[in-house]
Amino acid sequence: MPRKNIYFTTGPSELYPKFEEFMKEFVEKQYGSISHRSVDFKKIYQHTDEQLRELLQIPAEHAIMFTGSASEIWERIILNLTELETFHLVNGSFSKKFYEYSKDLERHAHVFEKPMGEGFSYAEIAVPEYAELIAVTQNETSTGVQMREPDIHKLKRSNADKLVAVDIVSSAPIPDLDMSLIDTVFFSVQKSFGLPAGLGVWVANEACLSKSLEMKKKTSLSAHHTLPDLWKQSKAFQTPSTPNVFAIYMLGKVAEDMNKIGRETLQKRVDQNAKKLYSYFENKPGFSIGVEREGHRSRTVVVINTERPSSEIISSFKEKNLIIGEGYGPKKESQIRIANFIANSSEQIDLLLKTFDNLF
Amino acid sequence: MPRKNIYFTTGPSELYPKFEEFMKEFVEKQYGSISHRSVDFKKIYQHTDEQLRELLQIPAEHAIMFTGSASEIWERIILNLTELETFHLVNGSFSKKFYEYSKDLERHAHVFEKPMGEGFSYAEIAVPEYAELIAVTQNETSTGVQMREPDIHKLKRSNADKLVAVDIVSSAPIPDLDMSLIDTVFFSVQKSFGLPAGLGVWVANEACLSKSLEMKKKTSLSAHHTLPDLWKQSKAFQTPSTPNVFAIYMLGKVAEDMNKIGRETLQKRVDQNAKKLYSYFENKPGFSIGVEREGHRSRTVVVINTERPSSEIISSFKEKNLIIGEGYGPKKESQIRIANFIANSSEQIDLLLKTFDNLF
Repeated sequence: MPRKNIYFTTGPSELYPKFEEFMKEFVEKQYGSISHRSVDFKKIYQHTDEQLRELLQIPAEHAIMFTGSASEIWERIILNLTELETFHLVNGSFSKKFYEYSKDLERHAHVFEKPMGEGFSYAEIAVPEYAELIAVTQNETSTGVQMREPDIHKLKRSNADKLVAVDIVSSAPIPDLDMSLIDTVFFSVQKSFGLPAGLGVWVANEACLSKSLEMKKKTSLSAHHTLPDLWKQSKAFQTPSTPNVFAIYMLGKVAEDMNKIGRETLQKRVDQNAKKLYSYFENKPGFSIGVEREGHRSRTVVVINTERPSSEIISSFKEKNLIIGEGYGPKKESQIRIANFIANSSEQIDLLLKTFDNLF
Repeated sequence: MPRKNIYFTTGPSELYPKFEEFMKEFVEKQYGSISHRSVDFKKIYQHTDEQLRELLQIPAEHAIMFTGSASEIWERIILNLTELETFHLVNGSFSKKFYEYSKDLERHAHVFEKPMGEGFSYAEIAVPEYAELIAVTQNETSTGVQMREPDIHKLKRSNADKLVAVDIVSSAPIPDLDMSLIDTVFFSVQKSFGLPAGLGVWVANEACLSKSLEMKKKTSLSAHHTLPDLWKQSKAFQTPSTPNVFAIYMLGKVAEDMNKIGRETLQKRVDQNAKKLYSYFENKPGFSIGVEREGHRSRTVVVINTERPSSEIISSFKEKNLIIGEGYGPKKESQIRIANFIANSSEQIDLLLKTFDNLF
C-alpha cells in the first residue's frame, strides 16, 4: 500500500485524527439510513449544537443552522439580512466573493479594498452611513491575512445599529470572537474541523432574525433556507430540507473531542505552531512571509512567498507525501500556503520544517 | 452488538449493498483531504458524470451539476429558468413545495392540483399560455403516486416552447424518461441510490442554459449556484464552491455498479417487487392500496392505507428490526410508506411480507 499523504492544504485538509473512528460509529449505528425527522436525528443535531455552543461560547438564544456550504451562507446573509446596502472589507479572493455576491443580488455594495496580503485595523475603517451589514473576513484563506478579534469587536461596538457578519471559514474554532457581541458568523467543516467538505454552519443572533422577519413583511427572502425557516427548525433540532446527516454527526463528534481537550489547549498549540512556522520562514533563504504586518498574520493559514516557482517546491514535497497548497489566483506560482489547522499536529509541522531543511 | 435494521423508509433509506466497500476506498485514497481544484477531484467528478450519463442515458450536451440538496434545485430552477410564470402539477407535499418555492420567489405560479393519492394523465392537463416552465413531480414521495413517462413525454412534445422540469428525487434511476426530450431533471442520493443525504443532482439541457443566459442580460439570477456558473464549471468537472466530494465519489461508484448490473435488470427487479407488494396488500385484510388507479402507482414508493393506526404497525416491525415509514402529513396515522428502492433486495421484500403475514 502506498504511504499515506499528510495534508497541509487549506481546505479540504488533513482529516481529524479520530475521523475514521467516528466514521465507523456512524456506519455501525446505521445513521446513513435514519430519517431526518426521527428522534435519533434530533439527538444528533442537539449533540452537535451543544458541543459547538460550548466550543465557540455561543449564547443560548442564537441559532446554529446548517447549509450545503459556506458560500451558500454568503448568499443567505445578503438575502435575509439586507434590503439595500452592504459594506465589505475586501483583501483577498474570498472576501471579494462575498462582496460580489452582494452585487449579484443587486444590493448597493460598498467596499473598502486593500491589496492581497494586507489587513484591516479598526481605526482605518469608515463605515458608510446606510450600510445595513458589515461583512468581515476574519481569516482570508487566499492570502493568510487575519483581522484581530479586538478590531472586530470595536467595529461592532461603534456600529451597534448595523449587523456584523464574520467569515471564520478557515479559522474556526480558534479565534476568540465575542459571540454575544457579533451578530452572525459562519464556517465550513473541511478546514480546521478536519472533515470532508459538504456542510456550512451558520450562527446567528436574534437581531438577525428580527431583521429578516421585518424584511419578510415587505419583500421575498427567497425560498430555500430562509433565515426564519432555518431558525425555527433549528430550535427543534430540525432542518427545512434533508441535510448532510453524516457531516452534522461528524462535526458533533469532533467538537466534543475538541471540548474534551479544551479550546485553550488547542489555541495554544496552534499559536505555538504558527510561531514556529513564521519564525522558520523569516530566516529561510529563498522564502519570505507573505503578510508583512505581524498582527495581521493568520494563525491557521500561513502564506509564504517563494523565490523559485511554488510548483517546484510543491512537487518536491509531494514526493515525500507532504501536500502543501499553492498560492491563490495571481499568487499561484509565487506563494505557497500551509494549513496550520487543529488536525495538523506539532509532529507534522516539525516534519514539514525538517523536510524544508533537507530539500531547500 | 444489536441486530442490524433493514430500512424500508423512503429517504434516507437502506444503504446500497456495497456502501461500506466504497466508503473504505474513499478513506484509503484520502479523498476527504484532496482539493476540489485538483486533478484527482476532476477525475472523480468525470467518473460520476460518465456513469450517470450511461445509467440515465443523458445526452453529451447536457450538464450534470451538484448542489446541497434537491430542495436547493427547486429554487435554482425557478430563479434561473423563469422570469414571470410557472405551472405546477401538485398532488402531494413535495410537488406542493416546488409550487410554493415559485410563489415565494414572486413568480406568478399557476397550479393544477389534485387530492393526495391521485395522479395526472396527459389528456387532462391544460397548460397556461404564458407559463415558462412546467413543473412535474414524476414520483410523489408523500403519496406514492407516479406520473407515467409517456404522459410526461407527450406533455413536453405538445409544449415545445416551454421548459419541462421533472422531479425524479425518489424514483431515479428507474423511470425511462427520454432525456433528449426533457429539459431538466433532478434527484437526490438518499433515495434509490442508497447513499447518506447531502447531495442534489441537477441535469439540464442547452435550452435551460440559453434561457438563463438570456435572463441574465436583464435581471439577477441570484448569486450562488447560478445555472451559467454551475454549467461552465461542470464542463471542466469543477464546481463553483467546495462540494460534497464524498457524496459525488460514492454516487459515481454506485452508478458504476448499477451500470455493471444493467439498468434494465434493476428496473425489472424493482417492478417485480412492486407487483409483489401491491398484490399482497390488495388482498390483505385491514390494508388497502393508497393509490386507486393502477397506472399511477409508484414503482419505488408503495403507500398503503391501514385500518389500525400506522404507528402500531410501525412499532411492531421496529421490534423485528424492519423500519417502515409512516404516512406523510395528514396521512401520518392512516398510511404506511414502503420504499422499494434498488438497495431493497427481493429477499428483503419477501422478509417484509412474511413478517406482515406473521404479525397482522
